[in-house]
Amino acid sequence: MQSLQEKASVWSGVDRADAFAIDDSNLFEKLGLQSFINLSTNFYTRVYDDEEEWFRSIFSDSKKEDAIQNQYEFFVQRMGGPPLYSQRKGHPALIGRHRPFPVTHEAAERWLQHMQNALDDSLDIDHDSKIKMMNFFRHTAFFLVAGNELKNQNQNQNNQVACKHAANKPAEE
Amino acid sequence: MQSLQEKASVWSGVDRADAFAIDDSNLFEKLGLQSFINLSTNFYTRVYDDEEEWFRSIFSDSKKEDAIQNQYEFFVQRMGGPPLYSQRKGHPALIGRHRPFPVTHEAAERWLQHMQNALDDSLDIDHDSKIKMMNFFRHTAFFLVAGNELKNQNQNQNNQVACKHAANKPAEE
Repeated sequence: MQSLQEKASVWSGVDRADAFAIDDSNLFEKLGLQSFINLSTNFYTRVYDDEEEWFRSIFSDSKKEDAIQNQYEFFVQRMGGPPLYSQRKGHPALIGRHRPFPVTHEAAERWLQHMQNALDDSLDIDHDSKIKMMNFFRHTAFFLVAGNELKNQNQNQNNQVACKHAANKPAEE
Repeated sequence: MQSLQEKASVWSGVDRADAFAIDDSNLFEKLGLQSFINLSTNFYTRVYDDEEEWFRSIFSDSKKEDAIQNQYEFFVQRMGGPPLYSQRKGHPALIGRHRPFPVTHEAAERWLQHMQNALDDSLDIDHDSKIKMMNFFRHTAFFLVAGNELKNQNQNQNNQVACKHAANKPAEE
């Protein structure tokens, strides 16, 4: 079976080395907290205003301000800054925390398009950092798609077993 | 619904502030790589020699050397060192990567007992660091138990829905 990581690389077109080039230097020290707050604010403004209801509805159980804070705190922590996310919420647990959401290929592509547009707007982030961040986002988005498909596979297998039992029951009684 | 984080705190008896006190200082710089390698080697030697087959079998699909490397690379990365784990395997994704395993309360307690014994053996780790690490491990173990139970809940709900459909089918045909 292909690993989550391998699927993420194939689907995103970004190999692991490029995805984690964000670790080659300290992007938090380079960019500062406010750049991350601005990016997540721009991103989620686009998401919550998305004309596509199927995409917007994925986020509808969260307040926009909370979504912004969760995201920039995770980015700051992951890109060399203080562990703001874990201090408030614990482990990122990316796949676990995305479990309730339908992270499909289509949803990943739409998320990434909004993020690309938000990065294009970000005059406080230099070109090289944008490339590194986008490679990280692209690989990570499809890592979550791989996690989502694993969930569905497990459920289908379990459904088959459970229903076989259910189907056999009347005959036994 | 209680969050994963809240369940982890209640079940482990370790609140978030104590669990993430590992971030108050740089434990990797304090202890060095070899201490982490030694700890994981001691820990997995205990695990793979465990007299309880139910516990040992959780790890039986992995080679001991791989289990050791995965663990110390994650610990190093999480406790202030270079991102060894992500360079090789990508996101830690703790809940996602533990999905195949039955992370029960009993399994968590037995994991923690082996880790406590391994820490007790570690003469290269000071008392204060041991306390911080054990609080992190304890909280994290029960965070994974919470993730595991969420998986089971989702599957049960899906089974009920799927089997209702399966049960209705013959009458419709």
